[in-house]
Amino acid sequence: MTDAAQLTARLIQCPSVTPEEGGALVLLRDLLADAGFEVTRVDRNGTPNLFARWGAKGAKTFGFNGHTDVVPPGPLGSWTHPPFSGHLEDGVIWGRGATDMKSGVAAFVAAAVDFVTETPPDGAVILTVTGDEEGPGRDGTVALLDWMTANGERMDVCVVGEPSNPNTFGEMMKIGRRGSMNVHVTAKGVQGHAAYPHRAKNPLHALTRYLNDLIAAPLDEGTEHFDPSGLQIVTIDTGNPASNVIPEKAEAVVNIRFNDAHSSASLTKDLTERAAKISAETAVEITLDVHVSGESFLTQPGPFVDLVRGVVREETGIDPVLSTSGGTSDARFVKDHCPVVEFGLVGLYMHQVDERVPAQQVNDLKRVYQKMLERYFA
Amino acid sequence: MTDAAQLTARLIQCPSVTPEEGGALVLLRDLLADAGFEVTRVDRNGTPNLFARWGAKGAKTFGFNGHTDVVPPGPLGSWTHPPFSGHLEDGVIWGRGATDMKSGVAAFVAAAVDFVTETPPDGAVILTVTGDEEGPGRDGTVALLDWMTANGERMDVCVVGEPSNPNTFGEMMKIGRRGSMNVHVTAKGVQGHAAYPHRAKNPLHALTRYLNDLIAAPLDEGTEHFDPSGLQIVTIDTGNPASNVIPEKAEAVVNIRFNDAHSSASLTKDLTERAAKISAETAVEITLDVHVSGESFLTQPGPFVDLVRGVVREETGIDPVLSTSGGTSDARFVKDHCPVVEFGLVGLYMHQVDERVPAQQVNDLKRVYQKMLERYFA
Ligand SMILES: [Zn+2]
Ligand SMILES: [Zn+2]
Repeated sequence: MTDAAQLTARLIQCPSVTPEEGGALVLLRDLLADAGFEVTRVDRNGTPNLFARWGAKGAKTFGFNGHTDVVPPGPLGSWTHPPFSGHLEDGVIWGRGATDMKSGVAAFVAAAVDFVTETPPDGAVILTVTGDEEGPGRDGTVALLDWMTANGERMDVCVVGEPSNPNTFGEMMKIGRRGSMNVHVTAKGVQGHAAYPHRAKNPLHALTRYLNDLIAAPLDEGTEHFDPSGLQIVTIDTGNPASNVIPEKAEAVVNIRFNDAHSSASLTKDLTERAAKISAETAVEITLDVHVSGESFLTQPGPFVDLVRGVVREETGIDPVLSTSGGTSDARFVKDHCPVVEFGLVGLYMHQVDERVPAQQVNDLKRVYQKMLERYFA
Repeated sequence: MTDAAQLTARLIQCPSVTPEEGGALVLLRDLLADAGFEVTRVDRNGTPNLFARWGAKGAKTFGFNGHTDVVPPGPLGSWTHPPFSGHLEDGVIWGRGATDMKSGVAAFVAAAVDFVTETPPDGAVILTVTGDEEGPGRDGTVALLDWMTANGERMDVCVVGEPSNPNTFGEMMKIGRRGSMNVHVTAKGVQGHAAYPHRAKNPLHALTRYLNDLIAAPLDEGTEHFDPSGLQIVTIDTGNPASNVIPEKAEAVVNIRFNDAHSSASLTKDLTERAAKISAETAVEITLDVHVSGESFLTQPGPFVDLVRGVVREETGIDPVLSTSGGTSDARFVKDHCPVVEFGLVGLYMHQVDERVPAQQVNDLKRVYQKMLERYFA
């Protein structure tokens, strides 16, 4: 039987600060190859990724997705135990990636290995592990999915092992995510002296009106499966040191987390129309540069969602909430490939100093994953 | 007879880029001393200033105020004639300070010298010339007035020789100025992830609401002698490079030009109350740091204003508008000392490349000033 907690500690000892591989994928490759998986490194532009399949290509396939890269540890001196120690004490494993998400990867790797060893299914299990989830994400899970498509590999369903529970193991699984987009706003007016504003066009007045218009009312009140969409102004910058000068230009960035009442296209259209209106009224040119991180998506409740939910309920005694909350994850890429849900550990201490996880919880998660596999192929 | 145009050219040849004296005050000292003025350099903290009195201390006194420092010439190659050449061609004097305001100083110096020489009055003429009007202004006219008070010197009335006419010589004199203040606004919230705004307090949302409130309605509609007050947001800055992070802090600077419907104190009170309201609603702390450049002031129409206005009308054929428009000038300091008005040249090309002035206009201004002296002591 594969010890998921011990594997977590060994993965933590690999210093895989994004985008470094740090030995984590090499460790997994060896372990999975020993268990009979066909393992392929699918690196792209120097980003390390691992693809592993047990069973026949094209068979009925259950997939897992996760990442071994971690965010930087921050000030080393602030850690109770060194961030790459994987120190185990009083049943707690310490280190960077303890919750996000070397533990999740260890849990599904251990579950898959034990499952195919103990009860070999009539089907296939695919594991996709990237070293670029915490970084730009351009050559991580996307590269794995591109490679799979090009090579005739596919998953019928996929569980992403990111921490999904806010406080209690079993309380929440994710069946979708809000979309995310950044809107860079530039307001270009006419510079002038602050004492003669009629000879200038103050871009900050137009920008303030525009941004105030954007935050004045919520984008929506939420939908059946989603929280309300949210819009946050994250920066406004001008850099004008002269208080008697009206500047020519000002910029802002707005981050929007949107539910399925919108798309990046519908929001872009709305924001562009509002900008045009204020531009027309102020003679300040407001232009938008939109960067879409991901559209919102929802894995409709159905057999796959029921399977995951049922296993979680049976193993933890808690009926998990079907949530779409939180930031983005690589599920936003997987959703274009197959139905995807997210279930993992309790997401405490993520990206913080003294990140740590109870060893028992990692083994509990492993058991949940193994039960999902058994149920799926039963 | 003293040639004001020629004196302008000689002053331009002194490279008195603020805070350099550049020989300009030395030139004036010698000229005034020769004409019988008692001349004193009133330098403070390295800033050059010149005080000159003709006649008895304590007598009925007409004063003039001006500055010989100039703003930097900018790119030398862009000038048609070198900025410190004082080049005369086709009746036009070229160079930095040609309008702002070596010409104005030359005009009142020439007028005063000729007046006391040709028609010695029963009274005194005081000239105050600073080398720090274009700079911080802390040790310029203020230092001269401080020194005068300490030494029992006083003017009964004063004309500041800054360019006062927008386009046509004689069309405008200034009998006051709006006040000016800068308000540094700091909004301090709680940093957080853009996907979880309920765990953060976005300072930019509070700041946007606050600033939008400030620009939503005019401060007033103008008063009997003043244009409407104006409020300009001149910069908003955050410096947050991470679009998924709600920043902790954001800052803005607001410049206010206010008329006699307000004071810096009443505006500070109003802005502070509005900030407190939005702080209370948003839990974002909005604090203000107020810097007052000067209160508004008005020299009430009366005998002195009538004298200046009458001379301008007779000499130019135009009845000058009694204006309080524009930025600040050293009149904001003089007004605490005695009634003050501003009359000078046409303010074209100020602070620009190819600053220049018609020689005839300088001599016209000299004649206007000399008539003011004659009328005052008649
Ligand atoms: Zn993660
Ligand atoms: Zn000036």
